[in-house]
Amino acid sequence: MKAAIIVCDGMADRPIKELGGKTPLEAAKTPNMDTLAKRGICGIADPVYPGIRAGSDTSHLAILGYDPFKTYTGRGPLEAVGMGIELEEGDAVFRCNFATIDGNVITDRRAGRIRETEDLAKIINGISIPGARIIFKSVEYRGSLVLRGEGLSGRVSDSDPHAPGKPIEKVKALDDTPEAKRTADIANEFTSKVKEALRDSSPANMLILRGCGIKPDIESLKEKRGIDGACIATTAIIKGIASLVGMEVVQAEHDYTDRIKQGLNVLESHDFLLMNIKEADEAAHDRDYKRKIKVIEQIDAALGPFLDFAQNNYVAIMSDHTTPVSFGDHTGDPVPVVIAGPEVRTDGVTKFDERSAAKGGLCRLNSSEVLPIMLNLMNRTEKFGA
Amino acid sequence: MKAAIIVCDGMADRPIKELGGKTPLEAAKTPNMDTLAKRGICGIADPVYPGIRAGSDTSHLAILGYDPFKTYTGRGPLEAVGMGIELEEGDAVFRCNFATIDGNVITDRRAGRIRETEDLAKIINGISIPGARIIFKSVEYRGSLVLRGEGLSGRVSDSDPHAPGKPIEKVKALDDTPEAKRTADIANEFTSKVKEALRDSSPANMLILRGCGIKPDIESLKEKRGIDGACIATTAIIKGIASLVGMEVVQAEHDYTDRIKQGLNVLESHDFLLMNIKEADEAAHDRDYKRKIKVIEQIDAALGPFLDFAQNNYVAIMSDHTTPVSFGDHTGDPVPVVIAGPEVRTDGVTKFDERSAAKGGLCRLNSSEVLPIMLNLMNRTEKFGA
Repeated sequence: MKAAIIVCDGMADRPIKELGGKTPLEAAKTPNMDTLAKRGICGIADPVYPGIRAGSDTSHLAILGYDPFKTYTGRGPLEAVGMGIELEEGDAVFRCNFATIDGNVITDRRAGRIRETEDLAKIINGISIPGARIIFKSVEYRGSLVLRGEGLSGRVSDSDPHAPGKPIEKVKALDDTPEAKRTADIANEFTSKVKEALRDSSPANMLILRGCGIKPDIESLKEKRGIDGACIATTAIIKGIASLVGMEVVQAEHDYTDRIKQGLNVLESHDFLLMNIKEADEAAHDRDYKRKIKVIEQIDAALGPFLDFAQNNYVAIMSDHTTPVSFGDHTGDPVPVVIAGPEVRTDGVTKFDERSAAKGGLCRLNSSEVLPIMLNLMNRTEKFGA
Repeated sequence: MKAAIIVCDGMADRPIKELGGKTPLEAAKTPNMDTLAKRGICGIADPVYPGIRAGSDTSHLAILGYDPFKTYTGRGPLEAVGMGIELEEGDAVFRCNFATIDGNVITDRRAGRIRETEDLAKIINGISIPGARIIFKSVEYRGSLVLRGEGLSGRVSDSDPHAPGKPIEKVKALDDTPEAKRTADIANEFTSKVKEALRDSSPANMLILRGCGIKPDIESLKEKRGIDGACIATTAIIKGIASLVGMEVVQAEHDYTDRIKQGLNVLESHDFLLMNIKEADEAAHDRDYKRKIKVIEQIDAALGPFLDFAQNNYVAIMSDHTTPVSFGDHTGDPVPVVIAGPEVRTDGVTKFDERSAAKGGLCRLNSSEVLPIMLNLMNRTEKFGA
C-alpha cells in the first residue's frame, strides 16, 4: 500500500467579487477532485499555525511531517541542496543573485537576468577567505554560496538591499554570538573580494547575498517515518527540502497528464510520493484569477489515474498555502485537504473546495498531521505505549 | 456536581465492507448513546496526537488529562501499581511472565498459563543481587519485578524474545548512561539467579522480563485538578494508572447493568468517575465485528441511568482509541466523544458514532482536553490570569 500527497501550490484562495463571491477553486469545474471528496475525508489544514503566512519552504516541511519551527533554518541551505550541493554540518549558506552595480549602488538586482554564469561561478569559487571554504554554484542569475568552516552561524543579515537604487549593505550579526560576528565578517570580506574579482565583468559585476541559514538538523523520512519517498516538482526549493530528507527527486514533466503518469511510475518503486504542482500559485502571484481557474481545471482533468490509485492506496490532495489573487502573495488562511483511500471515514462532502472541505470529517488540522494520518490509515505507524 | 467519563475501550472503528460501509458503532442500535448525543456536544478526539497509535496506557493517561509524552515511562511501572505494589522514586520496573524453557530456549512464554505462582513468587523474592532490592509480585503467570536502588534506569531492553523457539535475550542498555548499563547488568544477574532457583520447577522454570520503565513523576488528580476520583475497570494497566494518580480503584462487576450501578454508587462519594469497559476492544482484537456490535449494544442498553445523571452532572462517552476489526489492533484514528450535561452547547448531532460526532460542536480535540472541558462546564477550574 502506497501514499501520495499532491500539492496544488497556492490553489487555495479567498472569495472574489468578480466570481460572485466564489474562490477560484469553487468556480472551477473539478469533477475528479470532487469525486475524491465524495470518496474521501475532507478538512482544512493550517500550513504551519493559524494565521501564520507560510513560505513554500516552511509549508512543505510541514507537509512532509516536520515541525517548521524546529527544522527551518532559512531558505539558503534548502536552495543549495535543491541545486545539488551536498551540505555538511555547520555550513552557513546564502541565496545569491548576480547583480549590476554602479559604484556601490545596485542598478539591477538580477544583472539583466543573465543566463550564462558558469565562468563567473569559476571566478567566485577561486576566491579564498581565511577560515572558511567557499563553495558556489549558480543557475542563470541565481546562486548558492556555502561558507564551510568552524564556528559559523546562520544568524546574519543580507547584503542584498532588496531594491535597485540602494547601496550594497554590510552583512551584520543578528545575535551576540561570536559565530554570527565571524560569519558576518567572512561574508563582508567575501563581498569585497567579489567586487574586485568581477570589476570588469558586465552586466554581472556583483553578487548579493540573502537568506543565510545553517544546515538544518533534520531526520530523514526513512528514519522518522520508515518510508521511502520520492518528490516530483519543478521548484528548486521544494526539491531541496525533499533531497534534504532523503527523498529521490524527479524533475516534473511539462504536461500535467505526463506528470501524473510520472507520479504513478515513481510510486512503483517508492512508498510515498510528494508531487508539487506550482502553476496555480504562479497565476495567483500574477493576480490572474481567470488563469488560476484554468490551471486548476487542467490539473483536475489530469488527476483521473489517482482515482484508481485510491481504491487500494491513499492519496491526499491539498494546497501548501493560500495565495489569494487579491493579494498576490501567500497568506495564512487554512487550505482544503482531502484524503481518499480504502478505509477512510467518508463525511458527506461532495465538492473539493475551501468551504466544503471545512465541513469534513478531518475538521481542522495542521498540514504536518496529514502524512501521519495517512500512514496510520495504512497501518504503518508504531504504537506509542502498549 | 459530578463528572463521569465512560470509556468504551476500542469501540471506534473504520467502515467495514460487510456492514455496507458502516462502522460497528454505526451499525449497532445505541438509543442511549444517541440520546446523549442529542442532549450533548459531540466531537472527535485524537488519543495522543493525530495519526499516532495509542496503547491502553498512553490513551488513558490522556483521558485523565495528562500528557503521555511527558508522563509515560513504559508499561512496567503502571502494571506494578495496578498489582498493588507501592513504587518509590527511582524504581525500575519490568513486566514479567513465568515461562517454560528448555536449555536457554523458550518453549512456552506463559508456562502453560500456570495459575498458582505464589510459592514461585516467594522463591523469586528470596533472590538477592548486590546493589538493588528485588520486589516481585505475581498474578497467575504474569508478574511485576521492581528493582529498587540508587542509579537505575528504565532505558533497557527485554529478556523476553517475544516468541517461542527463541533463546532468552540479554538485557541491554538502550542509551549510554551508566544507569542503563547498571540496570541491564542487574537484570541479567537476576535472570541467571532465577534460572538457577527455578531449575527444578515445572512448567514455570523461568521468568522473562519486558517493558522496563522508571516510576513516572506524575501529579495526582487531586493536586492537578482538585478532584477526588475513582476508577472502575477490569484491566490491570488501567487500574495501575488510576492508582498512580491517586484514584480509588474498584474492580468492575461482570454484568454491564451492575457496573453502571456500581459507577453511580462510587459517584456518591467521589467527584469523578473513570469507567473503562474493555469488551468491545477484545472483540476487535479478535476481528469479530458481529461480537463487537453486540457488545456495543449491551453496553448501550446498560447506560440508561447515566441519562438521568446527566441532568445535573456531566458525563462523557468516548473511546480510548480506535481498534479496527480489519486490523485487530489499535490504530491512530480519532475517536468519537460526547459530553452531556446541563449547560453544554448542543450541536444538532443526533447519533453517537465516528462520523456523526465529527460534525459536532467540539470539533476535533485531543483526548487530554475532555476532562478539563468537563471541569470547566462544572465551574471547577482555576482562572488563568485575572
